[in-house]
Amino acid sequence: MPVRLTESLASTETVGRIFEDKAVVQAMLDFECALARVEERLGIIPAGCAELIASVAAAGEWDFDDLAAQSLRAGTPAIPLVRVLSQRTNGYVHWGATSQDVCDTAMVLLLLRQVMPYFDGLRSRLEQALRELSECHASTVMLGRTLLQPAPPVTFGLKAAGWMSSVRRGWERVRAAAAEALVLQFGGASGTLASLGPELGPVVSRELARELGLRVPDAPWHAHRDRLSALLSSFSILTGSLGKMALDIALLMQHETGEAAEPGGAGRGGSSAMPHKHNPTACLLTVSAARRCPGLLSNFLSAMLQEHERAAGGWQSEWPAITGMVEVTEGLRLDPARMRANLEATGGAVFAERAALTLASSRPELGGLEGAKREVEAMLRDGVLPGEFTKPEEYLGCAEYFRKRLLSPHGDEEE
Amino acid sequence: MPVRLTESLASTETVGRIFEDKAVVQAMLDFECALARVEERLGIIPAGCAELIASVAAAGEWDFDDLAAQSLRAGTPAIPLVRVLSQRTNGYVHWGATSQDVCDTAMVLLLLRQVMPYFDGLRSRLEQALRELSECHASTVMLGRTLLQPAPPVTFGLKAAGWMSSVRRGWERVRAAAAEALVLQFGGASGTLASLGPELGPVVSRELARELGLRVPDAPWHAHRDRLSALLSSFSILTGSLGKMALDIALLMQHETGEAAEPGGAGRGGSSAMPHKHNPTACLLTVSAARRCPGLLSNFLSAMLQEHERAAGGWQSEWPAITGMVEVTEGLRLDPARMRANLEATGGAVFAERAALTLASSRPELGGLEGAKREVEAMLRDGVLPGEFTKPEEYLGCAEYFRKRLLSPHGDEEE
Amino acid sequence: MPVRLTESLASTETVGRIFEDKAVVQAMLDFECALARVEERLGIIPAGCAELIASVAAAGEWDFDDLAAQSLRAGTPAIPLVRVLSQRTNGYVHWGATSQDVCDTAMVLLLLRQVMPYFDGLRSRLEQALRELSECHASTVMLGRTLLQPAPPVTFGLKAAGWMSSVRRGWERVRAAAAEALVLQFGGASGTLASLGPELGPVVSRELARELGLRVPDAPWHAHRDRLSALLSSFSILTGSLGKMALDIALLMQHETGEAAEPGGAGRGGSSAMPHKHNPTACLLTVSAARRCPGLLSNFLSAMLQEHERAAGGWQSEWPAITGMVEVTEGLRLDPARMRANLEATGGAVFAERAALTLASSRPELGGLEGAKREVEAMLRDGVLPGEFTKPEEYLGCAEYFRKRLLSPHGDEEE
Amino acid sequence: MPVRLTESLASTETVGRIFEDKAVVQAMLDFECALARVEERLGIIPAGCAELIASVAAAGEWDFDDLAAQSLRAGTPAIPLVRVLSQRTNGYVHWGATSQDVCDTAMVLLLLRQVMPYFDGLRSRLEQALRELSECHASTVMLGRTLLQPAPPVTFGLKAAGWMSSVRRGWERVRAAAAEALVLQFGGASGTLASLGPELGPVVSRELARELGLRVPDAPWHAHRDRLSALLSSFSILTGSLGKMALDIALLMQHETGEAAEPGGAGRGGSSAMPHKHNPTACLLTVSAARRCPGLLSNFLSAMLQEHERAAGGWQSEWPAITGMVEVTEGLRLDPARMRANLEATGGAVFAERAALTLASSRPELGGLEGAKREVEAMLRDGVLPGEFTKPEEYLGCAEYFRKRLLSPHGDEEE
Repeated sequence: MPVRLTESLASTETVGRIFEDKAVVQAMLDFECALARVEERLGIIPAGCAELIASVAAAGEWDFDDLAAQSLRAGTPAIPLVRVLSQRTNGYVHWGATSQDVCDTAMVLLLLRQVMPYFDGLRSRLEQALRELSECHASTVMLGRTLLQPAPPVTFGLKAAGWMSSVRRGWERVRAAAAEALVLQFGGASGTLASLGPELGPVVSRELARELGLRVPDAPWHAHRDRLSALLSSFSILTGSLGKMALDIALLMQHETGEAAEPGGAGRGGSSAMPHKHNPTACLLTVSAARRCPGLLSNFLSAMLQEHERAAGGWQSEWPAITGMVEVTEGLRLDPARMRANLEATGGAVFAERAALTLASSRPELGGLEGAKREVEAMLRDGVLPGEFTKPEEYLGCAEYFRKRLLSPHGDEEE
Repeated sequence: MPVRLTESLASTETVGRIFEDKAVVQAMLDFECALARVEERLGIIPAGCAELIASVAAAGEWDFDDLAAQSLRAGTPAIPLVRVLSQRTNGYVHWGATSQDVCDTAMVLLLLRQVMPYFDGLRSRLEQALRELSECHASTVMLGRTLLQPAPPVTFGLKAAGWMSSVRRGWERVRAAAAEALVLQFGGASGTLASLGPELGPVVSRELARELGLRVPDAPWHAHRDRLSALLSSFSILTGSLGKMALDIALLMQHETGEAAEPGGAGRGGSSAMPHKHNPTACLLTVSAARRCPGLLSNFLSAMLQEHERAAGGWQSEWPAITGMVEVTEGLRLDPARMRANLEATGGAVFAERAALTLASSRPELGGLEGAKREVEAMLRDGVLPGEFTKPEEYLGCAEYFRKRLLSPHGDEEE
Repeated sequence: MPVRLTESLASTETVGRIFEDKAVVQAMLDFECALARVEERLGIIPAGCAELIASVAAAGEWDFDDLAAQSLRAGTPAIPLVRVLSQRTNGYVHWGATSQDVCDTAMVLLLLRQVMPYFDGLRSRLEQALRELSECHASTVMLGRTLLQPAPPVTFGLKAAGWMSSVRRGWERVRAAAAEALVLQFGGASGTLASLGPELGPVVSRELARELGLRVPDAPWHAHRDRLSALLSSFSILTGSLGKMALDIALLMQHETGEAAEPGGAGRGGSSAMPHKHNPTACLLTVSAARRCPGLLSNFLSAMLQEHERAAGGWQSEWPAITGMVEVTEGLRLDPARMRANLEATGGAVFAERAALTLASSRPELGGLEGAKREVEAMLRDGVLPGEFTKPEEYLGCAEYFRKRLLSPHGDEEE
Repeated sequence: MPVRLTESLASTETVGRIFEDKAVVQAMLDFECALARVEERLGIIPAGCAELIASVAAAGEWDFDDLAAQSLRAGTPAIPLVRVLSQRTNGYVHWGATSQDVCDTAMVLLLLRQVMPYFDGLRSRLEQALRELSECHASTVMLGRTLLQPAPPVTFGLKAAGWMSSVRRGWERVRAAAAEALVLQFGGASGTLASLGPELGPVVSRELARELGLRVPDAPWHAHRDRLSALLSSFSILTGSLGKMALDIALLMQHETGEAAEPGGAGRGGSSAMPHKHNPTACLLTVSAARRCPGLLSNFLSAMLQEHERAAGGWQSEWPAITGMVEVTEGLRLDPARMRANLEATGGAVFAERAALTLASSRPELGGLEGAKREVEAMLRDGVLPGEFTKPEEYLGCAEYFRKRLLSPHGDEEE
């Protein structure tokens, strides 16, 4: 049961499986096994211990319900896990480590080995789909919309490029934050490895990191959660960008607007009451996931002030966002004719900005911009904005200029 | 597996069980069965349908993993559940209802039938334990502490009465909010029961509520989440009061303060690195649960602005707080001698407020309060605050006055 | 300068004025003057002190910049205020009180005397306007919309009644929470009035409350912020209901939907770039204010765990919501013809729920609801849902039933 | 009045002044003047316009109250400002720009020119003070404390180095995020500069950025707020690290612990009721500021989903944190003797981790770690942990190893 029903709208099967009990326990055992191998190699614990622990770990007969219940009493899953492991071996387990070393490193391993590659794969599919959508609709003119009201024309290609660019920036932030945050946690009771001593401690730490494929931070970070906070912030911001994209699409899908449609597909978008309905389900799941992040992040950041914070949580809800958006983007159906019709239905008002500037330049007797604006308002009231001012195609060049910059590999970099 | 390991520090077994998949599905089936019974009785669906549905529901063979997976695609667990139920019966299922009717009512049923009684039991034990603690320590003098610094003496009895009073107020708010929020949801596609019509719709609604033991609200509340928001707020506020109490105790348990100790007990309070350590585990679990509520509530309140919100979530984390506090309170060990010693170690400074007022009255030549304060400061610098000013017993009367008011059944009511 | 420019989108002039420096200082002086009057009457401080303090307070020459700067250093505005007051009188000031007594009671006074009446006036205008709108449009049929997609018809009268009902419930909660929260704060250094003693303390407290028109709580509440938390929660929930209403209207105002329009008026709704544009400015100001509440509330609730928290803040942003909604509601322009046209443009799909139920009843050979749904889907694919199924008027009765319940004075009460 | 009294505990005078009305208006005028200069140079508006606008801007007679009131109606300060500017000149103002261009760029200018240098100065003083404190107390042994209970010894030098390191990392994140976020906003009505056209638009944009000393982003970012979100997140995380440091110090300052004391100084740390009290005022102001950030950030991130969000707010509360911490750090008084005494008062328990590991190695007959732990527990119960196990000095090496890494310029980098 990787995802509970009450959470089924706020996670994905894959993420559920990454964080399911046996995966979490396995990551904790990976830590203990690697520690034993290193300490045996360095002569800190007797020969044979590492193999013994590994064999117990491999047997894998854990009563997860019991572990969870004991964790509730102990305040951490590490205590019951280490107790069981010690009972089943000769006790040379967890040597020099503290509970938080196991729990934090296990979470780091799951994030680094499972979550990041899964996420990266989705992200790359999304960027690709958005890039194709943008190229394909480079000349598809549509209404700009500000404050939910019509504004001068843009192209759908530009809109998709804007989404792509924010996802790319978001992922760069995630990657940078992960590189900083996903490091070994190993410090013992007070975070100084004092029980191993100043000579052995750092050596064990370095070797343990090598075994687990992790980097060594400057010092244990039991009470300094800023790196994890930065990682979670970057997740939340990326999810916010996905949520904005999903909301845009759901708004375009309104029946009265009708410029886009979700791909639909088996089991998606239906209604239990209305057989014919086609809901923006994937978009709304993304919006819903995106709305959950800020509060979860707020909780995590609030917890930075507690010296001894080990609350996990928070990672699990970010993923539905990207999964949903990949699916939607790969199958998005657009209606350029409807876009054009909606644009024309505004009766010229969206061309007013440009018309006013053109008039102000060409007819100085109007007395600058304010006078030209009044002139345009008068034309609009009479319903006759001259044809020279209402050609959507003239907006293509501007949209294309920014679209290409957004898609270029250098992003913000100055030309 | 009622509680997942990654959540084991943020829930309790009981709450996990209340919201586990089979309980959620059962509550949804309760809704569908009751609806069928009512509609059959009123001749809306053919005779025999209700029994058929009930027999399928009772069989209880549900593949929860599959249901969760389908829910993810459909955007709601109601769609796959109703589909399976229809396939296994003759299709007279869910007549006139919409997905949100089932999901919301199921959540209301779980809260009303399971969560509220469980919570009430814990709350009543906690209030009882606090009341006894308060009576027992009515004369146990200890330091007041403001801004983490010593302040004039109080009694432990007053402190416990303050905790009790805030828990009692908090529970009153929960009870009032639950009475308003835990009502039937039944409106069909647009919330008007239009498919049943204006005569039958309200009758079905009333009968359905009677079957389920729920009240009927003025109208369906699909998009008006203010009642649920008020209920969740009241949970969050009660949890905040419990968190404040837990933090107070954890601070009293510091080794340097040493005025209180958690009961400990099997599997609780130990450390994986330090065998002798006695951690304030229950207090810290409560503090941690209390710190998670504000962000979850913030997410829920943010979602009030979405017209079509069905996000569940949020309830699950409030309960560890009260469970932990019951356990702690019933077993709290206090050290009145240590309290007295800590008080005496402040060297008289905490008596300064009262000394200054007394001096200002008895020696008008000091020129009022400011002059008297300067006099007291001088005495303290010399280390000699006269004995007449430093009798903790003289503070008992004031503490007792407020302690009794806090414990009285009328609370805030004016005398 | 009651409102700073950077906050001009998140407050109103009236609220800005209620909380401006001189008003805050005045409320603090009201506390000190009332305390002096009471204590002089009871013979605690010498005759003449109260009048002296009152004359200094009335002189009203305060350097607010300097007070703010000193507050920053002292951690509370009470310390510099009391110091200045003492210097200008004979020092019999603030006798038996602590900083938080003055600050909390001042905030309570501002809320009770200024904010609540102002808010109540706005709320009553809004309820009235919504009630009239609802009566006037009892038969104005429009599309229901769920998940931003068309759903069976409702009436605008029902929609407005739903808004009204949530505002009425929200205000009831605010009123109840205010009655509990807006009480005297008076406890002295440790909250026991120890410097006045157990006989005099309660008497002073009672008299002081009478002077200020406040109720006396069971005990001082320096560290128990649950009552204020409940008041702020109720503000946030009411604001959420207003935000939902504003979002609904902004969506109806989209050019492609075109079913409603904000009243506009001088200086509102324009664009600096597009002279002809009419923005849903009041709605968006309300939505923006409503979006700010959850995070502010989350901060306040988080602060419940600090024993000695006195952070005010948070009240100021709730008011723009209700101001904006009053203005919008009083001037809302609706377009029933457009509503009808949008409904008809859906081609019958929104009638599918009712059609399926009717068919399932009238043609049992279809095999229940599932079969009937398939039949309706086929009809819709062929574009021919028989006219008997597509009469919006038949939905009037249902909408009217709930509309009347929502407007009725008893609300949720069972019939 | 740069800071209002109700906000005086949540800001600093300097930050108040940076964001006061005249500074905000000046930054908006800087934008309009630079735009006019560029457009005049390029022949887009008539010669002489730029000078005319500059002279009006320099005259600086603005009625800020009126501007704020009009902003409330217009939904943005840009509309009334541009209107007044146009009326006072010949109307060639704001040519091709939209309201959000002015507002966003003005905020960027204030952050880049004022806030960042001010913040950097404070941060550099803080790092310097922490580094000195760390060097000075490299050998000051004190208790480690986990879960508010005693743990094996550390040094105060290590503790200070941990604070320093998290502040340094936090500032690096702020600097990186600022470099990405603080860029020109210039896009016109729909964000494509369509009224200037695809040739002129980009040229104006580039020149305008050069005039203002800003970088040009890939495209206007009216609806893509991820860069600002990342900047605010980095502020919030840095503030969280400062809050953790402040909380640590406030806990060390408890009377019963007594290992540190705030510098105090004029007007700081006093109590209005207790003349002799010395409160951790600067620490508590920092903690309070740090607690306000998560909710404000949560609001900002939630607003990422609104297409047309321009809510400012949020920056103002981060600064008290760093100001307070600079002051505290520069004047922190420590008590190494008290640290040693507190350590010794634990009776040996904090040495248990190391003792168990040593025993397990030296006496294999105990049967590994579990056996050794039981042996140590027995010794502790008897009150006799042999002297060889209880030498705090032996913990110095470990602390020193990590302390040096934390202070080293390379931080996390692998050796």
